[in-house]
Amino acid sequence: MSEKTIRPVSWGENGTVRILDQTRLPLETVYKECAQVGDVWEAIKSLRVRGAPAIGVAAAFGIALVANRSNAQSTDALLGELDRAADYLASSRPTAVNLFWALDRMRARAAELAQKPIEEMKRGLTEEAQAILDEDDQLCRAIGEHGAALIQSGEAVLTHCNAGGLATSGYGTALAVMFTAHSQGKRLEVYANETRPLLQGSRLTTWELMRANIPVTLICDSMAAHLMQSGKVQRVVTGADRIAANGDAANKIGTYGLAVLAKAHDIPFHVAAPTTTIDLSTPTGGDIPIEERAAEEVTEGFGRRTAPPGVQVYSPAFDVTPAELIASIITEKGEHKAPYGPALKEAVQS
Amino acid sequence: MSEKTIRPVSWGENGTVRILDQTRLPLETVYKECAQVGDVWEAIKSLRVRGAPAIGVAAAFGIALVANRSNAQSTDALLGELDRAADYLASSRPTAVNLFWALDRMRARAAELAQKPIEEMKRGLTEEAQAILDEDDQLCRAIGEHGAALIQSGEAVLTHCNAGGLATSGYGTALAVMFTAHSQGKRLEVYANETRPLLQGSRLTTWELMRANIPVTLICDSMAAHLMQSGKVQRVVTGADRIAANGDAANKIGTYGLAVLAKAHDIPFHVAAPTTTIDLSTPTGGDIPIEERAAEEVTEGFGRRTAPPGVQVYSPAFDVTPAELIASIITEKGEHKAPYGPALKEAVQS
Repeated sequence: MSEKTIRPVSWGENGTVRILDQTRLPLETVYKECAQVGDVWEAIKSLRVRGAPAIGVAAAFGIALVANRSNAQSTDALLGELDRAADYLASSRPTAVNLFWALDRMRARAAELAQKPIEEMKRGLTEEAQAILDEDDQLCRAIGEHGAALIQSGEAVLTHCNAGGLATSGYGTALAVMFTAHSQGKRLEVYANETRPLLQGSRLTTWELMRANIPVTLICDSMAAHLMQSGKVQRVVTGADRIAANGDAANKIGTYGLAVLAKAHDIPFHVAAPTTTIDLSTPTGGDIPIEERAAEEVTEGFGRRTAPPGVQVYSPAFDVTPAELIASIITEKGEHKAPYGPALKEAVQS
Repeated sequence: MSEKTIRPVSWGENGTVRILDQTRLPLETVYKECAQVGDVWEAIKSLRVRGAPAIGVAAAFGIALVANRSNAQSTDALLGELDRAADYLASSRPTAVNLFWALDRMRARAAELAQKPIEEMKRGLTEEAQAILDEDDQLCRAIGEHGAALIQSGEAVLTHCNAGGLATSGYGTALAVMFTAHSQGKRLEVYANETRPLLQGSRLTTWELMRANIPVTLICDSMAAHLMQSGKVQRVVTGADRIAANGDAANKIGTYGLAVLAKAHDIPFHVAAPTTTIDLSTPTGGDIPIEERAAEEVTEGFGRRTAPPGVQVYSPAFDVTPAELIASIITEKGEHKAPYGPALKEAVQS
């Protein structure tokens, strides 16, 4: 692991879940050692760890944490504890499907191990969480390879929010495309939308790209249209929090607007995400629950109040980009194009 | 003048230019008494006073200030001083045409008065600046009347930045439409884009609408597309900083994107501005100079740094909405529709 590798979630030395507190970046690098499942829940809820794949990894380690800390005397009792913990962790955030996917996988593994001695079950669950992390890293590297093939040398690519190492197990989805293209010697520059209200673009994406020596320019979200109008951007690549069976993709609020703008300027708009983000049980984007966040994230997110007391605020955390605005979806399996229904089904099941 | 009347710029009791410091709103109401033309220049440059019409009024009073403070012994000498002051004030901000319009008008008035006694010239210029303010107030009220006729009771209207009383002599352009519709008993609600980087929507527009008891909901700029997609907005009305002869309109960065999004959702997009904002000598939007602002407004605008040190930032303050995206332009003369070339020429010259 090079000193540049980001590890947003890992299994701590003392049997804790070690989470890089992303709310403190880029000015401070602080880790939170979660010794209780409540600490993991709070870290997800408060966006200390965020990004669909990273949330999944954190939740999986949260289940391993509960298993390891349990005083249950029987695997049955432990199964009950794990089930309650999984329900609890599932209540932290509603939109990213990787959370539910990872919890389901941990539940399934627990059920498989239920006939084994309890210590073996604990060890097995810890290994399963680590496997989810390790596999995510492989998925991200494959996404990087498939996506980089699209990037022409000399392009400027616009991205929104943070779909980087911080949002995953360490290498990213949308940013994996840029890391890989850069490592292949392609010249590219990136424009990063700051991503209000919580500035993941400003705080996290610029930080990751600067660490990787990829030229990056920060803009406010409202500047993207002008950038496209001026011919300064040739491609848009974002991540996703949940992709419905028909290809509609939920992602950070602002993504849908970017996709509409990209279409109006004949700029291809791509989504990069592992197949763990595809939810075949959600037929369309209209079926994806959209989290609403607290008003204070908008009105006093910068440490100083910037709106009148009592002002009404509407703050959806995500929006849904309809499949028809998406030029292609890049997963670890390859580049998928419309019609997305069969393409995504095959990607998930192959 | 009711207690609710906003007076962003006025002639102070001690012969100063009194400017409501909008950078301190909404939490503090602080006036800056400008005793030197340099104070007026700084107030415009630093956006203590902002909004195309209000900048024009401030610049006109700046010229009156120079006249009144002058020790010139001849009107010729005073004319020279005023000319230099006008050039200086014109260097404060490049995009809003009202600044140049007001300075030209003050220069022309000074030339007219050049044969009069010097005290009469000083008094005449003070009266001219006051006339610009008073006339702007009348223009804004007429814009309100013409614009309100478009608003259907029950509509939700989206606006960007602040085109309210604070941006003008006191009543606004885009917000005048809402104030007037509201005073006519129409039910309307307003969504206000916060307007990064300097949050004029969050700080100023919500404050003005709340004072007027008009229901307002604050959103981040990136949420506008989702709002439109959800059917929550029926109309967009913004101000303008300069309207070219062909109808292309420069306004706060983010306006162009809104106009593209409105078009994609079949939502009418209107520009409300006095004819003093129309610049027939600028053929198209491509000829409008676009101010770029300092990186720090994006990276540490709220008292706390929110991006890595050394990050590259691109921060254009305005963008240009092409005429074809504008459903109509509302001035004090009425509602103007495409083809804008002849319509705007007639509006300005009638």
